[in-house]
Amino acid sequence: MELITNPQPLQWPTLLKRPIFDNAEIQQRVMPILQEVAKRGDEAIRHYTQLFDKVTLNAFQVSEEEMAEAQRLVPETLQQAIAQAKRNIELFHTAQYDAEKQIETMPDVICWRKSVGIEKVGLYIPGGTAPLFSTVLMLGVPAQIAGCQEIILCTPADQYGKVNPAILFTAHLVGIQKIYKIGGAQAIAAMAYGTATIPKVHKIFGPGNQYVTAAKQLVSQTGTAIDMPAGPSEVLIIADHTANAKFVAADLLSQAEHGTDSQVILLTTHAPLANAVNAEIARQLETLPRKSIAEKALENSKIIVLPDTETAMAMSNVYAPEHLILAVEDPDALGEKVINAGSVFLGHYTPESAGDYASGTNHTLPTNGYAKAYSGVSLDSFVRKITFQHISKQGLKNIGLTISTMAEAEQLRAHAAAVYVRLEE
Amino acid sequence: MELITNPQPLQWPTLLKRPIFDNAEIQQRVMPILQEVAKRGDEAIRHYTQLFDKVTLNAFQVSEEEMAEAQRLVPETLQQAIAQAKRNIELFHTAQYDAEKQIETMPDVICWRKSVGIEKVGLYIPGGTAPLFSTVLMLGVPAQIAGCQEIILCTPADQYGKVNPAILFTAHLVGIQKIYKIGGAQAIAAMAYGTATIPKVHKIFGPGNQYVTAAKQLVSQTGTAIDMPAGPSEVLIIADHTANAKFVAADLLSQAEHGTDSQVILLTTHAPLANAVNAEIARQLETLPRKSIAEKALENSKIIVLPDTETAMAMSNVYAPEHLILAVEDPDALGEKVINAGSVFLGHYTPESAGDYASGTNHTLPTNGYAKAYSGVSLDSFVRKITFQHISKQGLKNIGLTISTMAEAEQLRAHAAAVYVRLEE
Repeated sequence: MELITNPQPLQWPTLLKRPIFDNAEIQQRVMPILQEVAKRGDEAIRHYTQLFDKVTLNAFQVSEEEMAEAQRLVPETLQQAIAQAKRNIELFHTAQYDAEKQIETMPDVICWRKSVGIEKVGLYIPGGTAPLFSTVLMLGVPAQIAGCQEIILCTPADQYGKVNPAILFTAHLVGIQKIYKIGGAQAIAAMAYGTATIPKVHKIFGPGNQYVTAAKQLVSQTGTAIDMPAGPSEVLIIADHTANAKFVAADLLSQAEHGTDSQVILLTTHAPLANAVNAEIARQLETLPRKSIAEKALENSKIIVLPDTETAMAMSNVYAPEHLILAVEDPDALGEKVINAGSVFLGHYTPESAGDYASGTNHTLPTNGYAKAYSGVSLDSFVRKITFQHISKQGLKNIGLTISTMAEAEQLRAHAAAVYVRLEE
Repeated sequence: MELITNPQPLQWPTLLKRPIFDNAEIQQRVMPILQEVAKRGDEAIRHYTQLFDKVTLNAFQVSEEEMAEAQRLVPETLQQAIAQAKRNIELFHTAQYDAEKQIETMPDVICWRKSVGIEKVGLYIPGGTAPLFSTVLMLGVPAQIAGCQEIILCTPADQYGKVNPAILFTAHLVGIQKIYKIGGAQAIAAMAYGTATIPKVHKIFGPGNQYVTAAKQLVSQTGTAIDMPAGPSEVLIIADHTANAKFVAADLLSQAEHGTDSQVILLTTHAPLANAVNAEIARQLETLPRKSIAEKALENSKIIVLPDTETAMAMSNVYAPEHLILAVEDPDALGEKVINAGSVFLGHYTPESAGDYASGTNHTLPTNGYAKAYSGVSLDSFVRKITFQHISKQGLKNIGLTISTMAEAEQLRAHAAAVYVRLEE
């Protein structure tokens, strides 16, 4: 990893610049797919599934037999691990439920919010080499807690028309009934517009390649909500003299193995750590099946030596990392100064992979600097908080003049009149 | 208003169809404005302000003298009304603050969320005939409670280079220091990209005309968050035999006066109410300064007679209105069945204008059916909920096998290794 020592704050933005992906061209390629699915429904889905996934499906929906088969294929140890992760995620996300608090803002003027689950949500789980069953937990568990009435899941089949059994096992565990073996931009279109087979949903969640991302972006402009804009995954670690080079190297690599476009940054106040981490990375890389991916990601990655952890935190807040690890002596104190980050991992024994899988926090997080304005997925992502108010006749007497004075000043007479007609009765 | 009796559920979607606005053409016109502001900054702003607002400004920022002058120009009664509304909005939005709840998902695995205000936010307040100082409260108050460090406000000046004093008074009251006299797409671009004078922000809030809306939509695709997608304002009223035709007519008109594209729907279980409301509308219309606007809006509006309030609520949930008024005998019971709505007004003495101005709830709400997936603006809109976790050495022993088993099954070895290196120590 490239080593930089004590850069001046003016240099920080350039140093921390992320690669810019222009997806206009991809959107151009995805647009006709969306239009075809909107027009021809299942027929278009079938066509694109043959074209891109090289598989002809008799039925899109996963059958009960396939579900039963998946339960048998997943090893007992993995079943237990998934069940444990589910319990932790459930615990953490259930605690996010807001009970209705009625606020009497003035006498007899009562206002409150009520969390109501989004009726229909669609979860997208990518196919490919790594079966992301953990994402089924991260999206399916809060969707269930929110009380979403219809939860569907789309994930592409392999060339034999099969979905990875761990994905099916996990979906079954969280109670998702409708699983469709379709992927890519065509799956996003199916969920956004609905087809004879695939129900239309109000919000679409989940990761995907650049085509899926572009499709989500496009449908989000025509009435379908999406979880958040997506970019390459990233980690920033702040490490001081108490940090263990082995741990730090392992955490950097666990991010780097995601993809060649992953972003990995180490800020350290302890110059000797820089070399020790680089040496450890070289050593640990040798043991990794995804070595070539990680190596490529590390080419764009940086170790920056800074005078103190305060400066490091200031720099981290400029970068706004998706994942932030504080491998320092007093992580709680430093954690208080976080302004921009998706998820924060405190101390030497809190690897990012804990949050990726099992500690209970969500792993769907804002990348690409979006942490400056967006939160990660949570129970909130699956509900609307609808406001309610109930004003009695006496309450309206108390608040009426305030309303009508403001309405008249905004030259909206009918707004004031809605108060007048009531107070005249 | 057009009267329809007992339509069959299959007809509902057609009956409730909103006009579709194709803003592709407007986006085409707005795009060069955004590009010019990105390239030439203040110079471009000055140019477009002369072109569109017909005013040449010496300085964009409102001066202290102008602020002081505004305080003198706002009548005492209006000052008091605004102050009262501010207290109510503050009370309601402060109650939305979530204290950190630490959850020990497994022994020594501790997870929590922390609300952190978005550092820099921009509020847009339209100019024109009606000075929307109420929106300054609705956006400025939660931004302050959230602890946003920089809150800027853009609003266009009139031909004399002045901003409406009620807007300046309200901005001062909520503690907004930086107010810029610029409007339109160029103001949105200035806040999204920053100029020498106007600070770049992370999220932009506020209503506007179709150019402002298109500009917000465009910048939201390149890294600046926005409050929510916008469409024409709308109300749906469910009224039974206990409803007062005068009140119902006044509420319909208070929505209709917003704009010629406003959507107004009355669902009633009591057929005689339909005629009584139409007669009242005709009578009340005569008293309204914005009569011609309201008349136009009413042309596209409907009264639908339905057999019972349950059916009416089912229809309302299909429509997903921005504002929903329940003018029925037992509004609390019926309110329990709301699935899709932005804000709900219960009972005969709760006009929509209460929530528009003063009861405490927010008036920035999802229109155009977006209530199916989006909430209105709240304190949540101005914070990120950052997740934190702290795992001790013992905690990692407890959870380690779960993490590594899942990581290995997802073929992400480095994720598992981040656990192994720690447990080996």
